[in-house]
Amino acid sequence: MRRRIRMGMVGGGQGAFIGEVHRMAAALDGHIELVAGAFSSDAERSKSSGADLYLNPDRVYGSYRQMIEEEAALPANKRIDLVSIVTPNHVHFEPAKLALEAGFHVVCDKPLCFDLNEAYALQKTVKETGLIFGLTHTYAAYPMVKQAKAMIAEGKLGVIKKIVVQYPQGWLSTMLESTDQKQASWRTDPSKSGIAGALGDIGTHAYHLAEYVTGLQTTSLSANVNTMVAGRKLDDDNNILLKFNNGAHGVLVASQISAGEANNLNIGVYGALGGLLWSHENPNQLIVKWSDKASQTYQTGGSGIYPIAQHATRLPSGHPEGYIEAFANIYTNVAHCIQAKLSGKTPTNHQLDFPTIDDGVRGMEFIYKAVQSGKANQDWVIL
Amino acid sequence: MRRRIRMGMVGGGQGAFIGEVHRMAAALDGHIELVAGAFSSDAERSKSSGADLYLNPDRVYGSYRQMIEEEAALPANKRIDLVSIVTPNHVHFEPAKLALEAGFHVVCDKPLCFDLNEAYALQKTVKETGLIFGLTHTYAAYPMVKQAKAMIAEGKLGVIKKIVVQYPQGWLSTMLESTDQKQASWRTDPSKSGIAGALGDIGTHAYHLAEYVTGLQTTSLSANVNTMVAGRKLDDDNNILLKFNNGAHGVLVASQISAGEANNLNIGVYGALGGLLWSHENPNQLIVKWSDKASQTYQTGGSGIYPIAQHATRLPSGHPEGYIEAFANIYTNVAHCIQAKLSGKTPTNHQLDFPTIDDGVRGMEFIYKAVQSGKANQDWVIL
Amino acid sequence: MRRRIRMGMVGGGQGAFIGEVHRMAAALDGHIELVAGAFSSDAERSKSSGADLYLNPDRVYGSYRQMIEEEAALPANKRIDLVSIVTPNHVHFEPAKLALEAGFHVVCDKPLCFDLNEAYALQKTVKETGLIFGLTHTYAAYPMVKQAKAMIAEGKLGVIKKIVVQYPQGWLSTMLESTDQKQASWRTDPSKSGIAGALGDIGTHAYHLAEYVTGLQTTSLSANVNTMVAGRKLDDDNNILLKFNNGAHGVLVASQISAGEANNLNIGVYGALGGLLWSHENPNQLIVKWSDKASQTYQTGGSGIYPIAQHATRLPSGHPEGYIEAFANIYTNVAHCIQAKLSGKTPTNHQLDFPTIDDGVRGMEFIYKAVQSGKANQDWVIL
Amino acid sequence: MRRRIRMGMVGGGQGAFIGEVHRMAAALDGHIELVAGAFSSDAERSKSSGADLYLNPDRVYGSYRQMIEEEAALPANKRIDLVSIVTPNHVHFEPAKLALEAGFHVVCDKPLCFDLNEAYALQKTVKETGLIFGLTHTYAAYPMVKQAKAMIAEGKLGVIKKIVVQYPQGWLSTMLESTDQKQASWRTDPSKSGIAGALGDIGTHAYHLAEYVTGLQTTSLSANVNTMVAGRKLDDDNNILLKFNNGAHGVLVASQISAGEANNLNIGVYGALGGLLWSHENPNQLIVKWSDKASQTYQTGGSGIYPIAQHATRLPSGHPEGYIEAFANIYTNVAHCIQAKLSGKTPTNHQLDFPTIDDGVRGMEFIYKAVQSGKANQDWVIL
Repeated sequence: MRRRIRMGMVGGGQGAFIGEVHRMAAALDGHIELVAGAFSSDAERSKSSGADLYLNPDRVYGSYRQMIEEEAALPANKRIDLVSIVTPNHVHFEPAKLALEAGFHVVCDKPLCFDLNEAYALQKTVKETGLIFGLTHTYAAYPMVKQAKAMIAEGKLGVIKKIVVQYPQGWLSTMLESTDQKQASWRTDPSKSGIAGALGDIGTHAYHLAEYVTGLQTTSLSANVNTMVAGRKLDDDNNILLKFNNGAHGVLVASQISAGEANNLNIGVYGALGGLLWSHENPNQLIVKWSDKASQTYQTGGSGIYPIAQHATRLPSGHPEGYIEAFANIYTNVAHCIQAKLSGKTPTNHQLDFPTIDDGVRGMEFIYKAVQSGKANQDWVIL
Repeated sequence: MRRRIRMGMVGGGQGAFIGEVHRMAAALDGHIELVAGAFSSDAERSKSSGADLYLNPDRVYGSYRQMIEEEAALPANKRIDLVSIVTPNHVHFEPAKLALEAGFHVVCDKPLCFDLNEAYALQKTVKETGLIFGLTHTYAAYPMVKQAKAMIAEGKLGVIKKIVVQYPQGWLSTMLESTDQKQASWRTDPSKSGIAGALGDIGTHAYHLAEYVTGLQTTSLSANVNTMVAGRKLDDDNNILLKFNNGAHGVLVASQISAGEANNLNIGVYGALGGLLWSHENPNQLIVKWSDKASQTYQTGGSGIYPIAQHATRLPSGHPEGYIEAFANIYTNVAHCIQAKLSGKTPTNHQLDFPTIDDGVRGMEFIYKAVQSGKANQDWVIL
Repeated sequence: MRRRIRMGMVGGGQGAFIGEVHRMAAALDGHIELVAGAFSSDAERSKSSGADLYLNPDRVYGSYRQMIEEEAALPANKRIDLVSIVTPNHVHFEPAKLALEAGFHVVCDKPLCFDLNEAYALQKTVKETGLIFGLTHTYAAYPMVKQAKAMIAEGKLGVIKKIVVQYPQGWLSTMLESTDQKQASWRTDPSKSGIAGALGDIGTHAYHLAEYVTGLQTTSLSANVNTMVAGRKLDDDNNILLKFNNGAHGVLVASQISAGEANNLNIGVYGALGGLLWSHENPNQLIVKWSDKASQTYQTGGSGIYPIAQHATRLPSGHPEGYIEAFANIYTNVAHCIQAKLSGKTPTNHQLDFPTIDDGVRGMEFIYKAVQSGKANQDWVIL
Repeated sequence: MRRRIRMGMVGGGQGAFIGEVHRMAAALDGHIELVAGAFSSDAERSKSSGADLYLNPDRVYGSYRQMIEEEAALPANKRIDLVSIVTPNHVHFEPAKLALEAGFHVVCDKPLCFDLNEAYALQKTVKETGLIFGLTHTYAAYPMVKQAKAMIAEGKLGVIKKIVVQYPQGWLSTMLESTDQKQASWRTDPSKSGIAGALGDIGTHAYHLAEYVTGLQTTSLSANVNTMVAGRKLDDDNNILLKFNNGAHGVLVASQISAGEANNLNIGVYGALGGLLWSHENPNQLIVKWSDKASQTYQTGGSGIYPIAQHATRLPSGHPEGYIEAFANIYTNVAHCIQAKLSGKTPTNHQLDFPTIDDGVRGMEFIYKAVQSGKANQDWVIL
């Protein structure tokens, strides 16, 4: 019998940002119940965070290691099914590996890991355990992004020739990390973020989006990797040229010093017959510009929507769905896949439509190749 | 100690639309737990609906009367705190009254009741019981609508002179109720919807929005109330002129035969110094056009946002929040007010910022006066 | 042999606004040459205005009466063909009548005349002389407005059920006429503007647009005619309900106290199958929202454009055409019709697509009926 | 005494596109009169083109050489002042040089010349003759582009850090030159267009725009120069990284295979304090996104406009000005500069604000360096 999936969270204590988003996303559709957590490496903060969340104090732990061990020891009808990892990059690998080894499915924030070796090791563990691993490339979970993917896959645009994906933010246009701003601090700290700043934080989103929407793979890149704010230790502005496996060309911009921009991820894909444009500023519409007829605007929940996009939609057309809903599409698909596993069923293709460990490894490779090209005066580097 | 609010639902069984929205909205922020329900007057359907929602079968009831009685008999630390009513208009009054009389707080869908007498009677019960009553005029719960209200209240626009509020939908532009479309059927059926169709379904939203944003009250109206689809029993297209208590003039359009429109509620308010525009098609932005300087666009979570709007915001600027989030703002405020009551505290003004029984009565009066004017060749009718 | 049309202008001297627009519009396509003018009732100002325009001083006159007389006395191969009247409302009738009686074609600014009697008299003169009379309802000359008209005429939207046309401006939201602002002064002065202010200045544009685009005729109206700025002598804010000859309902808003709005004429037309939206803020696009498929955006010069719209277009898609180009569409069509007459040919339907004396009379009737309704507590008045 | 400037045109005969634009632009403001032309190298076509334009047949010439010679022989009060060159690239240099040597001022379409040597030679001639030379980088003549330039020059955005300029078109996404499409044929023909296709046709516009708006100069570029349509002889898709003289980074995209795009030039400039966005799809607005306050939208003719932008504006806010008006801003400034020269006056800075021979040379250098980088596997090339 189908039951609600039980989740434990790693990170996301008081003062965190993305942990709260994961919780709302997991809660939204009612298929997942947060029952445990190691919300902070500070045991007191973890306890009080758990209390804020109305959790049973017995299941609020002082460390993820403790959570995984103790939950694994609970009876099957009580222990968690799923571990959600919402910590900074340097605390992805170990909890994920431990969770998988203890038999728990995982949802992990991006980028996948602190470094590429961790990524490969984790990929190995996922494959060996056969467990479900979801990565929160949220933007690819918007219904209109899925609509774009489906239209391209069906050949509506013809052969794809050009992709321009941009992710401008402005919040790091000053030396924000010299204040006590928590989000800025770890993202610009090589000991927590890894070898990249903006490349990992937002560049991987843009990169994943480009490959997800088009179904193409990049084959090489030439990256201009810049640090525009003096004193910053990692990149904050990237302008990257891409070549794709079908001969298409691309441009990827990932910048956190584009002052005034909030979170304006956008993509344009041009094929032989027309182009499509999606922007996170208007996520519920997909504009398709045709060579030979009036342009069209598809709306979330509206007419002409493909099943895979409709599957990711809760409301009738005209009722905007946002970032949390997109995030929830990943969690709900993961939950449905776990439920299918529990009942010995095969998930549908729509349920399987979420980013996985392989997307995570690919994102890490992107980071490494871009940094390599950036250091080599922007030579083309093969992916 | 603060605890999660327990909710029972009336209506919202399989195949319903708005019940699911109420559930997602109640779940989003984690302060409310759905624990009981009478999801359908058909006991079997209620049971299977409860099972879909992973509820304890013991607390899935065959009727709202049964739910209210049996829940009231449970121990205080188990029984529901709150009844959510998501049925058609003709099944608002009785469950709401019973719930209140049993000591339960209520969140009710709009319009408030089937008729005006019910509305007055329910208002009396709410006042007598002193319980919390929330009405889901969702649109007024968007952060940028609250921003608009706050800016006007502070006099940024000067004296308000003109309001244009429009709510065009197109889904009833054909005789949809002659098919088995459930949403269309009851909304166009006088025995379920009451004396009005579009007026009650969407006109009350537009009316509430105009008064909420401006802080003004309408004093009279002149309503052109039309039924444009032959054979339909209730209005589907309304064009209404309004006068406000400060001398401002207004236009209210509420139409369900505006073919091609999804759910395009929008409002323009003009004062002595400038005008502001909000549209549900872009709910995270508020445009302010000034007489003497460049126009401004405020963004949810962005710069220049007032505390009451920020209170209704979960995410940083650039992360779109949508319809469910707005809906959740009502539920979460209600939950916080119940929690305050449970712990003997006074809710904050921001927590009290949700539509109440008085807004519901006002909406019912609007319906009645509009219908009266419509029948009297659109004479001005005093509100 | 085809030749350039020679034009004389009445009004439009130094400091005027719309006269310059008429001149640019007449000059744009090269078919009309300004050769004469009575630019001001002040002979000196007329002279210096003519000098600014590089005109032969012999053909710059001290009064329109003089211009018409002396031009009529010139040889046929030299005298003007066309008189352009760009004066305030109270100086439309006489120069137009004199011009027609002298055998000159006329282009006149709107509204047609100072009062309704003048309008009927002028209509009679036009019919008797058989000369060409163009009225500058500019907005109906935009390519995308013509596209809208053509699509509706072809039945693309099905039976039209609803029209919402709004013309908000904000420039008269203060008592601007108490300064020396020339445009405000005459428009709010009953001795120059006639019985209406905003109704005549912009209401007639909105009214004409609604009838032009839909091909329908209004049969009655109910008008809320307001003066919102204390001390003003004419209306500045109008909210009008309309009934059309096919049973459609409409709303017309014409306001000059909508502070912050520049010149935001816009129209929505809804039929059985979908709706279309055009706004002067984005005049080169026409949005069509369909009931059952993705919405479309037509672009000036783009794909799917009807011949009558293409005829009004100079540039390839993506090259914005604006207000002067729309204005020029009227002048150029008038010029082509005069050329056709000179060479004994019949103008094409596309060349005949400009507002005429009959549109002018209809606009004057609209003003009168609206004022009548406004005074009668907004009773329905038959048009 | 101020008089109208007399113009002769080279190219722009029947069937041409840009010649007609030049004529409308020159005519719009009334300061220039087209009196002569060598509209085609085919004398018959030149004659009939001149007749279409109502020109005196005596001044319609069979070649530009003839026009320049015969016009130079006319008396000073009759002969042309200005030669407008609207031919393909390979016919810019010679007529321009002859015109200058004959004492005529020149307005020339872009890119400046067929090759870089011609460009340098022409620059030398302009300097030697001291005559006026205007280049039609139209986009830099839009009022809101000038507003952007003025705001940046005044330091409103702080130090500029990033520029993204894109010029996507789709009209060459098929092998259009294999049909008899005249515009496509010469632009893709190395014998007429020079060493570049899209780079010269639209890349130079984007490049000029970036430098004009920011006041910065590019110091090096790395160009991915592609031909995406098989069989085409010149580039049709370019993705270029830029470095600027103040350390800012940039991206320039110039593509004619972005199917579905019409003429969507757009630019984003980010400084320390905010960013600004201008797009040719909405040329009358300039969006400024601030780090610390609500974003602003400036409108042509609206509030907060700088004098240099107002100088380029004809109409009050809300009256869209388009491509022809921008084009006319160049012609009218050139005309005013010629008039100033004729009367021994100094032109104002606003009148001098048009692209010159130096901009033309810079554009040719851009083409050459981009092609060089593209051939060298996209190495950085110093400008």
